[in-house]
Amino acid sequence: MNHHGGQIIAGRPSSEGQATFTALDPAKRQALPTAFHEATRNEIHRAATSAAVAFRDYRCRSPQDRAGFLQRIADQIENLGDVLINRAQQETGLPAARLIGERGRTTGQLRLFAQLLIEGSWVDAVIDRPLPQREPLPRPDLRRMLIPMGPVAVFAASNFPLAFSVAGGDTASALAGGNPVIVKAHPGHPGVSELVASCIVAAADATGLPEGVFSLIHGPSHDVGLALVQHPDIKAVAFTGSLRGGRALFDAAMKRPEPIPVHAEMGSTNPLFALPQAVRRRGAAIAQGFVQSMTLGAGQFCTKPGLFIGVHSAELEQLLETVGKQIKALPSMTMLSSGICGAYFSSLTRTKCSEGIRILADWESESNSHTEQHGASTTSKAAALVVEARRFLKLPQLHEEIFGPASIFVICRSKQELEEVAECLQGQLTATIHHEGDDLKQFDGLVPLLQERVGRLIFNGYPTGVEVCHAMQHGGPYPATTEARSTSVGSAAIARFVRPICFQNCPASSLPPELQDDNPRAIWRRIDGQLTRDPV
Amino acid sequence: MNHHGGQIIAGRPSSEGQATFTALDPAKRQALPTAFHEATRNEIHRAATSAAVAFRDYRCRSPQDRAGFLQRIADQIENLGDVLINRAQQETGLPAARLIGERGRTTGQLRLFAQLLIEGSWVDAVIDRPLPQREPLPRPDLRRMLIPMGPVAVFAASNFPLAFSVAGGDTASALAGGNPVIVKAHPGHPGVSELVASCIVAAADATGLPEGVFSLIHGPSHDVGLALVQHPDIKAVAFTGSLRGGRALFDAAMKRPEPIPVHAEMGSTNPLFALPQAVRRRGAAIAQGFVQSMTLGAGQFCTKPGLFIGVHSAELEQLLETVGKQIKALPSMTMLSSGICGAYFSSLTRTKCSEGIRILADWESESNSHTEQHGASTTSKAAALVVEARRFLKLPQLHEEIFGPASIFVICRSKQELEEVAECLQGQLTATIHHEGDDLKQFDGLVPLLQERVGRLIFNGYPTGVEVCHAMQHGGPYPATTEARSTSVGSAAIARFVRPICFQNCPASSLPPELQDDNPRAIWRRIDGQLTRDPV
Repeated sequence: MNHHGGQIIAGRPSSEGQATFTALDPAKRQALPTAFHEATRNEIHRAATSAAVAFRDYRCRSPQDRAGFLQRIADQIENLGDVLINRAQQETGLPAARLIGERGRTTGQLRLFAQLLIEGSWVDAVIDRPLPQREPLPRPDLRRMLIPMGPVAVFAASNFPLAFSVAGGDTASALAGGNPVIVKAHPGHPGVSELVASCIVAAADATGLPEGVFSLIHGPSHDVGLALVQHPDIKAVAFTGSLRGGRALFDAAMKRPEPIPVHAEMGSTNPLFALPQAVRRRGAAIAQGFVQSMTLGAGQFCTKPGLFIGVHSAELEQLLETVGKQIKALPSMTMLSSGICGAYFSSLTRTKCSEGIRILADWESESNSHTEQHGASTTSKAAALVVEARRFLKLPQLHEEIFGPASIFVICRSKQELEEVAECLQGQLTATIHHEGDDLKQFDGLVPLLQERVGRLIFNGYPTGVEVCHAMQHGGPYPATTEARSTSVGSAAIARFVRPICFQNCPASSLPPELQDDNPRAIWRRIDGQLTRDPV
Repeated sequence: MNHHGGQIIAGRPSSEGQATFTALDPAKRQALPTAFHEATRNEIHRAATSAAVAFRDYRCRSPQDRAGFLQRIADQIENLGDVLINRAQQETGLPAARLIGERGRTTGQLRLFAQLLIEGSWVDAVIDRPLPQREPLPRPDLRRMLIPMGPVAVFAASNFPLAFSVAGGDTASALAGGNPVIVKAHPGHPGVSELVASCIVAAADATGLPEGVFSLIHGPSHDVGLALVQHPDIKAVAFTGSLRGGRALFDAAMKRPEPIPVHAEMGSTNPLFALPQAVRRRGAAIAQGFVQSMTLGAGQFCTKPGLFIGVHSAELEQLLETVGKQIKALPSMTMLSSGICGAYFSSLTRTKCSEGIRILADWESESNSHTEQHGASTTSKAAALVVEARRFLKLPQLHEEIFGPASIFVICRSKQELEEVAECLQGQLTATIHHEGDDLKQFDGLVPLLQERVGRLIFNGYPTGVEVCHAMQHGGPYPATTEARSTSVGSAAIARFVRPICFQNCPASSLPPELQDDNPRAIWRRIDGQLTRDPV
């Protein structure tokens, strides 16, 4: 498959700029053909204004039309077959099985939102009937529902080239909500991005949607992303990536003359608390499960458990020993890019130099100072570090995410110390508790403390593996995200890109179907405070 | 009733600082007794940390406990009787009848949220049952609901000394959501603030809640508000007031190491479109209704219709003439404070000096340059200005809110010009359309254009009078608010101060009642995508 390497603006390739870059194969450490063009200011402007024009049309399309569009995108992605998987493998180094699974997740997400649209109740229709006789003043007829906000800028993630990228959850939920989307492709997989973008363009064409409903722009430099976020036609931003990147876009969006919401998912350390009876009864299994979870996808998941917290005991020491052995036995792993690999080594090195850190299993033990030898390396190994809770509490640098297959094991000397660790945690996407017997009763302060700090609380499991469903919450207090009230996974993700409007005494002919008396879409509505599917 | 004039921090009066101010009677233009103390940094810190401590307890209280608290606050406010109304009249110059109505609205709001808590379905419980046999991986048990965010800073408004002040909608919805509240009192009515705060303190005491659940701080200077917003224990902000004030708090909150949501309602011009057939058939009635709405409460409502847009015709000229006559016939009005009155005159003067503005009815026509003669005046009169649409489109200063009883009448020469005016509007709390016959068909672009720009769209009515109910949306795109996805009036206002959490494979003993299998609170829940009140 040939790539044109340009932006795709309102359905058409565009390569105005001189600056180009290539995709790199992290496994072979070599550049892939095709030069991709960085978007110019003018291209960004055209993408944004086309989206604003398309919004006028797209926002009025029926749920069936939007659902058909999403389904068609899923079909098109599947039709690409091995071409997509092969290119994704080349650009990311991720194994084919994983990418095939991720493709299923991506098309599943698109179809989940299509279903949501067809069912229709997500618009949260609320009707308060008029009270014309009320004294001193009558109550008018008031009807409220969710409507789209306008063009959304989506920043693709490096670590999910399909499910959190061009046609990933952010794009699916924004399009489902009735908003045009401009994706800023991740420079790590521009070819995959172009392939998937062409699916969206084809689907828009096949379903008769305006071309501006979707655009794709490229740009390894921060300027492209900032220019997109600063464009007045952009009305919301979704981002998955690093704290630094997310915060920079957030700051730019907040400084706009018209600030816009930024839903940035920036990862976290995802602490796992292994309580004493669980460690006693299932120490070896927890060790194995934890190592699997922290090294899955070379630790390049935002839900990677980066912290393990336990109470000192002989069994915990044994668990740590098992962890150490398992990690040492793991083969080396190809990371997504040399940049990510380099950042992993830097964070790890910084962390290892912290006072009081004990190395349980580490890279350097086998091949010394690999970092310096291979500046452009993409090969990492897992690492496990141990620290006493007393020290952990004093070293804020240990509370930061290490993106890659490394975790810190925090040893507490008392229940109180364990609660202090829980209390000092920043906002997290997830926290996990392993418990057996009356562990939860013994540590009854833990669940409330963690609830205040996390988006998802997992019991006797592992945080990696984020189910796409209605009940999922993939989000959490800052710095896990910039908006704890939203989720970027699951059907509730649509809520990020819609806002309520209230119609007062609106004539039937101007009311959207969702608010009409006879409830033509047969959706659930709250009428005078009561949920019902009955007509008014 | 004696006032102590201090802050109320976690139930106790506190007057640490030296800086004091007094309340002013705008009708008599004289200072009222009692010196009120501006909060010190230390007092702000104590209020915030007390709130954080109280949060641990308050967030776990049952809905019945929280509902009882809100009901008790309402009872206490009613028990104050005339003392409250008299002081409010003294401090604001608003008529007793209006204040009695506003008190009813305030206690009604508190009781609405109490009802919402007791009914319970607002927590948006979503349950996806496990699929242990699913291939390739089982689905875990996932359960999601809304939980409180932490201490909320509420900035009281000047223009609603009860309903948008100490125990107003922001406080009621934040407390209902399970969050402690710190109110920054409006310096325009510190005595009323102290009275109402004492009701909340008494209610917390009577219902056995932690003292830190509520504090009141005073401070006419911006520093007090900024220090409160910047305090790390504050997790959300609600504000009603000016664009400048709201934006300053928003900017401060966004620059925090941990940014927090700011729900600032900053008013708007609330355009009213009078379409030709409506003007023909009901011109005089529209003139009268509009003048009443724009001058209600001396024009000091965030929903005051500040723009009137019509298409040139003989009937429109007649309507304008009627408006002019009615406005000239109105008596002068006491504004809330000399500061607000002064700002009104300044905006009005600036607007009048714009090129192409015709004065339909105005203050100066009767008593020339009142502004200069009475710098500390609190007495205003209504004003109406007329401008051609062509000019309006070119003068951004005419698109800004004038807080007070003045409106601009924009004359369009064509349907296209009217749509251009709609298109150039900034974000609005409301827009209104007056229509008759096939007006809406003739102007079929108008409803979609306005939908993109407003929180509430009113037909054949007036924007003042914001119903407190489930379907209300009191919000809108920037600059009407800093968060178009939220409302500050109605039961949905609670959504501002809560966020979702997901429990994965959580043992029954650790699940909140709302998510337990047998649905002990009998609330509506979405189980595997279906709304039901059945057990799991």
